[in-house]
Amino acid sequence: MKALVYLAPEAMALRDVPDPTPAEGDHLIRIDSVGICGSDMHAYLGHDERRPAPLILGHEGAGTIVGGPRDGARVTINPLVTCGDCPACRAGRDNLCATRQIISMPPREGAFAQFVAMPERNLVAVPDDVTLEQAALAEPIACGWHAVRLGITACGAQTPETALVIGGGAIGVGAALSLVAQGVGDVTLIEPNALRRAYLADNGSYKVLAPDELPADQRFDITLDGVGFDATRATASAATRPGGVILHIGLGGGAAGLDIRRLTLQEITFIGTYTYTAEDFRDTCAAMFDGRLGPLDWTETRPLSEGTTAFADIRSGRIASPKIILKPA
Amino acid sequence: MKALVYLAPEAMALRDVPDPTPAEGDHLIRIDSVGICGSDMHAYLGHDERRPAPLILGHEGAGTIVGGPRDGARVTINPLVTCGDCPACRAGRDNLCATRQIISMPPREGAFAQFVAMPERNLVAVPDDVTLEQAALAEPIACGWHAVRLGITACGAQTPETALVIGGGAIGVGAALSLVAQGVGDVTLIEPNALRRAYLADNGSYKVLAPDELPADQRFDITLDGVGFDATRATASAATRPGGVILHIGLGGGAAGLDIRRLTLQEITFIGTYTYTAEDFRDTCAAMFDGRLGPLDWTETRPLSEGTTAFADIRSGRIASPKIILKPA
Repeated sequence: MKALVYLAPEAMALRDVPDPTPAEGDHLIRIDSVGICGSDMHAYLGHDERRPAPLILGHEGAGTIVGGPRDGARVTINPLVTCGDCPACRAGRDNLCATRQIISMPPREGAFAQFVAMPERNLVAVPDDVTLEQAALAEPIACGWHAVRLGITACGAQTPETALVIGGGAIGVGAALSLVAQGVGDVTLIEPNALRRAYLADNGSYKVLAPDELPADQRFDITLDGVGFDATRATASAATRPGGVILHIGLGGGAAGLDIRRLTLQEITFIGTYTYTAEDFRDTCAAMFDGRLGPLDWTETRPLSEGTTAFADIRSGRIASPKIILKPA
Repeated sequence: MKALVYLAPEAMALRDVPDPTPAEGDHLIRIDSVGICGSDMHAYLGHDERRPAPLILGHEGAGTIVGGPRDGARVTINPLVTCGDCPACRAGRDNLCATRQIISMPPREGAFAQFVAMPERNLVAVPDDVTLEQAALAEPIACGWHAVRLGITACGAQTPETALVIGGGAIGVGAALSLVAQGVGDVTLIEPNALRRAYLADNGSYKVLAPDELPADQRFDITLDGVGFDATRATASAATRPGGVILHIGLGGGAAGLDIRRLTLQEITFIGTYTYTAEDFRDTCAAMFDGRLGPLDWTETRPLSEGTTAFADIRSGRIASPKIILKPA
């Protein structure tokens, strides 16, 4: 099959590689659509030691089952493979499974390819009226959906009414939509890229501002950092109300930015959040499929063969939409 | 009255000052016992801009009501004065009251003095079989009691069974006792001072170790940092299990130490915790008075007139017990 293979920092190429061999109980899926994630970019730049070259990246895939009793079924892929049996899995926190794996990280190859093999339980059927481009958004949106669920739970009796989302990539947009869908009425998203901001502005669900347009004295019940750099953590530290919650999804880098003294004196909770449980993933799909997360039209598509150019365009800030979907064809 | 007045960084003196004048509804309390807190030490060293000189420090007081219908009643003092009417107070998070005050911080003078004035609702009656030295521990223990309650709540369905407490001062000891009293069976406390460690070792409730005796691969459901320096936050980051909770009470200083990447990838919650609600304070007193928090014999007493020496002894690490109680007499 054709696959976009990460070869070395800043080097990636379309290559012929062997088709995956499904293990017992796995399905072979022909990838129709696969999103580029910020973590793919980190790996491409050589910043993610969990993803050593050579490797097929990509973990936001949707496609069609090939062969077997479900041949032809349209599915979106939960890329997180968990054991189902460790204490975390049994406690319903399977994203913290002691032996968790994710496609695009050894030993599992990713979905920037014509095919992947996945366990049956990782596949969610996609209704006919939802495109596979839309379905490929399940993974990034599920990250926000999960974080928002944790954040609302952490607010306890003080039901959150306001939220700030930092970053207008797919994580931020998915989180903003998830906040609204889970009942937080007043959501503001800040994004420094004017091109991206203009693209998102007319969305009907949440406000979009440049970071410097945010009033300095505004405080939010929940702040979600979908970026994860020192500067965005500093913004989150200042913008969260006493007793509020910071949700930290981004793996941008650095270890600074948090105002530890303010977090302590104002009893602010900082929750590191990683991926989603299998139930969150299914709940996200249900919300996507019944329209609660809006039209899911904030993507643009490119052929897989132009993946390297897509990475370069994202890196240079030339992309308006929060998500590029690659099409292996 | 006599009061120990903080005059300038590292300068404090016993002075004659006017007696406090109780506002309507307040009681005048003759202080019998008042503990020295780490935050008093910060202020004394000039490190707390919230406590500018000249000021009477001290907020861990117990004593006897003077005058009025409750003349002679033995009470311990909740030093946190809240409005009861703001959104935080109404939500039961009165420690986050928008206009909260605490004695020892302007506009309220502290309890390193013969008298303080306090609202009726801030006083908890002390049973005859509890000494006022023991009763003066209510405030520091309540800080740990409150944090532990938040931590157990944040653990959700995964009931915590193990906890690490960093620091064997009164905050750490109160937290360790609160963990045990609130059902966490296996509690380890680490303390670098060998003198303090020897004093605490034979306590029957929790294990006491030197920091370097902690096995490098041990992970805890809850870690409580009762110190709050970069080094202790680093220890907390490494020692907390995936999905676990860090409780951060200490205001030691710095803004580094947290392993943000691990907190994110392993979904660890960091909760800044400050003081206690009025209900936590009463619950702490109830647990102290019915014996759930042990014999409360880990104090030593000094005359208020020797307060400056006591501060110097604490600073030099010459004090074995976690708490010095000053006696205005």
